[in-house]
Order: sequence, then structure tokens, then C-alpha cells
Amino acid sequence: MSARPHVLLTPGPTPLHPAAQAALAGEEALGHMDPAVFAVNREIQADLRTLYGAPVGTLTALLAGTGSLGMEAGFANLLEPGDPVLIGVNGSFGARMVEMATRAGGRVRTVTAPPGEALSPQAFADALAGEEEVRLVALVHGETSTGVLNPLAEIAQVVAPSGALLSVDAVATAGMQPFDMAGLGADYVYTGSQKGLSAPPGVAPVAVSGRALARHAARRTPTPLWYADFAGLRDYWEAHSYHHTVPVQLHFALHAALRAALAEGLPQRQARAAAIGEAVLAALTPLGFTPFVPTPAHRLPTVLALRLPPGLDDAATRAALRERGVSVAGGMGPTAGVIWRLGLMGEGARPALYERFLSELEGVLGVRGVTQRFQEALGVGA
Amino acid sequence: MSARPHVLLTPGPTPLHPAAQAALAGEEALGHMDPAVFAVNREIQADLRTLYGAPVGTLTALLAGTGSLGMEAGFANLLEPGDPVLIGVNGSFGARMVEMATRAGGRVRTVTAPPGEALSPQAFADALAGEEEVRLVALVHGETSTGVLNPLAEIAQVVAPSGALLSVDAVATAGMQPFDMAGLGADYVYTGSQKGLSAPPGVAPVAVSGRALARHAARRTPTPLWYADFAGLRDYWEAHSYHHTVPVQLHFALHAALRAALAEGLPQRQARAAAIGEAVLAALTPLGFTPFVPTPAHRLPTVLALRLPPGLDDAATRAALRERGVSVAGGMGPTAGVIWRLGLMGEGARPALYERFLSELEGVLGVRGVTQRFQEALGVGA
Repeated sequence: MSARPHVLLTPGPTPLHPAAQAALAGEEALGHMDPAVFAVNREIQADLRTLYGAPVGTLTALLAGTGSLGMEAGFANLLEPGDPVLIGVNGSFGARMVEMATRAGGRVRTVTAPPGEALSPQAFADALAGEEEVRLVALVHGETSTGVLNPLAEIAQVVAPSGALLSVDAVATAGMQPFDMAGLGADYVYTGSQKGLSAPPGVAPVAVSGRALARHAARRTPTPLWYADFAGLRDYWEAHSYHHTVPVQLHFALHAALRAALAEGLPQRQARAAAIGEAVLAALTPLGFTPFVPTPAHRLPTVLALRLPPGLDDAATRAALRERGVSVAGGMGPTAGVIWRLGLMGEGARPALYERFLSELEGVLGVRGVTQRFQEALGVGA
Repeated sequence: MSARPHVLLTPGPTPLHPAAQAALAGEEALGHMDPAVFAVNREIQADLRTLYGAPVGTLTALLAGTGSLGMEAGFANLLEPGDPVLIGVNGSFGARMVEMATRAGGRVRTVTAPPGEALSPQAFADALAGEEEVRLVALVHGETSTGVLNPLAEIAQVVAPSGALLSVDAVATAGMQPFDMAGLGADYVYTGSQKGLSAPPGVAPVAVSGRALARHAARRTPTPLWYADFAGLRDYWEAHSYHHTVPVQLHFALHAALRAALAEGLPQRQARAAAIGEAVLAALTPLGFTPFVPTPAHRLPTVLALRLPPGLDDAATRAALRERGVSVAGGMGPTAGVIWRLGLMGEGARPALYERFLSELEGVLGVRGVTQRFQEALGVGA
């Protein structure tokens, strides 16, 4: 392995923000009930309201687990056995939602699209037009497994009149573009700390609307998941009463990373990722890489999914890159061996890291000029 | 607040082991599927087998959450709706088990003892003598809320002939005394990283017996908790296939802390905690503090629970100590305002930290000689 720092260009985890790294190492070990920890938590809560564009009455908090716990907490808290739930599925994370909602006892129906294509608002409208009242609609904003950005605003507009709760997986988008929970009428939003925010993995920033909290409070059956019960979460984050030990070092690191993201500005981060993504695409196109997502408007700015050139050995090439100190991700499920996924999240969306990746790729493939094309497309000096 | 390092003497989280602190800060950010991470994970698995005294065929792993997730994962994986479960309750954490087992659909019966007293093996024998076959018996080894050590070996001996699975909460004991999973016939054991091991909170080291894995594989219904499903855990830890993103920084830190604990030796750690606990008791007895647990054999060496002297204001005194940079814990539930709980886990069980605590306590209470009595009892120079 190279002695230089490892270059992590997967779609999460991302390289740590320096402020997150410093906070992880530098803060004192404190208890989860310490006044200084509650002070940090309050700032996290305020910053999460900004991150998600959350209206008054929203509970913002960190779950003590990764984004998948965020996903599962939504179904565990917002569904009761037998409740009808409608899930958008156009990749592995939509499919994971079906698995979790089924385990939570939901009667699951799906709206589907093939890998690489976006979910259709009309398909949601059709599914919601039936006689049965749907309790919860859930979908991913960005499908990390395929690099697709779903048309969330249009889908939310269709869901609103139905009265169903709306749960949005913002794992691939939060922190890298503005999010308008209030305008969307979303009831539950979650991400993982290690994605667009570039904090270490292990906490899931969530937002729960006042409407979702009221429906949760009116449950007829207990929430099956004690660990992430919204009532317990509220007890700790709002009333400062003990629920379970929280990972304070990860709170400190997330706090620092989140502050840095908001200080830079979400539109600025969006533009930064988009510019690098376009330049990488321009650099790799002559090698035979092609966008996996055919429709440009449906391409997720934070995960560049590229179909591999014919003849390129996925596993061997990524292993050779790894030997040179660069990690990129392959496909998942049906796209394994078919695509690469390049993360453009947080500290991963930096020109220098992509220059390093492309230069190592030149060495592995025995080609030249890729890095130079990237620099020219980005308009930086070669 | 004091400029000196904060002294964290709660029964978890504990002060970080220096090696854990260094690993937290110093390791490169790597992905959860990176070969270097799997190499660390393999060493963690081997060390956890030593920590728990686990027999061949046991799955050892980290859950991506705190000890409470470890507790909930046991019930979610090992119970199906309607299964009879017997739970020992002599404090807050036994009561939490009842809550979680109920949510998992178990038909819960309990064996109880008052706060401060240990669970009785005979009571388990009586409860298991009924006609109904019990699927799972669960209890805490050490009850952190009251400072009681339950007679685990004797209870395990009673449970074995019943054929029930045995789940043991080792949150208060793991890493601070030898644990004999094989000899006990225990099927599920868990702790939190931030207790006796002095790693940061956020991962739960668990061990699942071959028998428990076989019963889990034979479930008629899906495990309600996808996030901590034993099958998914096995996929990631044994087959190295993706389940969810793991908190790699916490893996690195736990790895370092666990190595350090085993290098010191579990009997040596047990002796270290016991010696300090006895000296603290000797130092505080003249002030009117008395052991909350009447029977010496039932006192948990890692949590010294002391009944407060009449007239001592719990909240005000602990707040004053906190102002001077020392945290100790009060009681929980029925013991709130009645006891203090002093952690003697991992890096918390160090004479210098207790000297600091006792010296600050002298200042807060306006008394003298407490620290000196501690030093004399411990046999260190005054």
C-alpha cells in the first residue's frame, strides 16, 4: 500500500472532514448525561433543522447507529402490524425498505422502476388512487446503488393529498444539496453521518415531523424497536432524561462536520460535486465508460455511476487501485460487475482526490491523458 | 470547569484507554468492505472469543450500536411471537429486558429480587419446574443500576437441564473479570464498548453460541430487527458480504482497547478494581456512606453503590463535583437520590482518578482526611 493517505472515493463512508477528525480525537470523554454534551446536542438539533429545512415542531436528533438503523426506525415507529405501506423501489435500498417494512408488519405494495431509471410520480398517483388508505409512503431521494436521483418534489406533491405519512431516505443527498422538508411535507427524513457530511459512521441524523410524532403517540401497539423508539429519542433529546448511552465522540465529530457543511453552504456543496462529476465523466468517456443512468436529469450528483468499458475486469482493476491506495465502489446486486460508483459526497468531492484516482487509473490501465482531461474540464491548471 | 482533564467515574462511559484514543484519531478512514478493516475485524473476533471464553462454533462480532442494542438484539433474534421467556429482574436493566422481550412478542415471566439483592438460583429452578417449556432465560450478570452481582454460575447450572437458551448481559462485568461462556453454557452474551473495555461508546461486542445460531436459523418468522439480524451479522463478519456500513473508527478503537485489556489480564483487572473499591469504601465510611448491597458476596466489583449519608444533597453535591471536573453517577428509578454509583471499570479503576475525586469531595463537603484514608487503605504513599 502507498504511504500517502488512502483515497476513499466510495459513496460512503467518505474521507473525514478535518474538523470532524479533530473533534473525534480532541474532545474529552464525557458522559451521555453531561451538561456539556447536552449543549452540543442542542446545537446539533438546530443545525439539523437547517440541514433538512425542517418546520417548527420537528424533532431532530441522532440515532445511535448507521443509516440503515435510520431506515428501520422509520418503519418500526410509523407502522403497526397490518398497516398498508407504499414503497418506491428502483435499487437495492428501495428493496431494503421492503424487507424492513415487511418485518415491521406492514402490508407492502411497491412502485418500481428498473435499475438506472427514476421512480415515476404518476405511478405513485396511480397506486394511491385505490380504495385503501395508505398509512406511509417511503422512497429514497437518491438511490446509492445505481446513482439515480428520484423526482422527490413531484412525488411529494402527489402524496400530500392522500394523507399518508411521507418518509424520505436522504442518505445519498443530505448535506450536499438544500432539502426542503417543510415544502415537501415530509414526515421522516434520515441520513448517515459518513455520507455527505463526512463525519465518521455510527450515527444517523433524523428529523421527525410533528404530524409523525402525533401519529406515533397514538399507536395502538408498542413500537417493536425500543432502541430507536421515537418516544425514547424525544425523552433524551428534548427532556434530557436517560434512554440509552449515546456515542458522544461521534456526536462531537458530527457536530463539527455539520457546522462546516452549513458554513460552506449547501448550494455551494452541490455545485462543487456537480462540477467534479462532470469533469470525471469527460475524462473517462474516451476510455469507454458511459453513464449508467440514461437521463441526465435523473443522475444523482453525489454518486457517479459509470458502466464499465467492455473487457475491463471490475474486481482486478479495483483491487489494483486499492493496492495503490484508492478505493472506488463496484455495483450492488444486478449491477455488480457492470458499473463503478464514484462518490462525490462531502470531502470526497475534491479535485485533488480525483486527480489522484485518475492518475492511478492511468497506471493500472496503461493509458495516459485522463488526468489532464479532468483538469481541463474542471478548468484547473495541469 | 477545571482546566485539568475531566475525571469520568460513572459506571460507563469510562475514560478512554490511551490506545483507544490514539486509534480513534490516528487510523485512516477506510471503507467497511476494505481488506484492512476485515483484518482488524478478524482480530477483534479472536479477542472476543478470549474475552468471553467462547467455545468453538460461537459467532463473535460487534453490533453497530450501544449495549442496549445488544440487549434488544438478543430478544429480537432468539424469540418468536408467543415464545415463553423467563427474565431475572432486580434493577433497571432487568426491567428494560422485560420491556424489550414484550415488544419482541415474548410471553414474559419474571424472577425478581428487591433492589440491592441478588437473584436466587432456587427461584429460577422453581420457575423452570412448571409444565411450559421456556425458550429463553435472560438476566444481567451485574446490575449496573444497583451494584449487584448476580450468582451467574449457580443460575446457569439450574437453567442448563431445561434446554432453554441462556442470554447474559455482561455490560457491567465483561473485560473486568474472566467470563466462561463455554462452562456456563451461555448462548448469547453482550456488553458495551464504553464499559470495562474503556473504548468509546457506539459498538456492542456480542457472542452467539452455535446452538443459538441453529435455533435462529430455524425460525418460523423473520427476525423483526433487520439491523441486528444474526444472519446479516454473520454475512458481514464471517462471509465478508455487505450488510450495513459499520463504524470503522469505533472498530479500530475497540480493537486497541480490547488488546490492552487482554494483555493486562482479566484476573489482574478484577484485582485492580476490587482493591480500589475496598479502599474507597474504607475512605468514605467515616463520612456516613454505607454499602447499598448488604451481602458482600453480591457486591459488583465494577460498580460501588453507596447509600448517601443522611442530609447529603445528592444533586447539589454531584453538580458541585461536576463543576470541579469530576463526574459520578446517582441512582436510577427507585434508588435515585438514595445512592451514588462509582464506576470501577477499565480506565476508571485507577488510584489517581479516585484520589482526585476524593480530594474534590473533601473540598465540596468541607472535610479532610478522606484522600489520605484512601491512600492508606490502598497502601500507596500519601
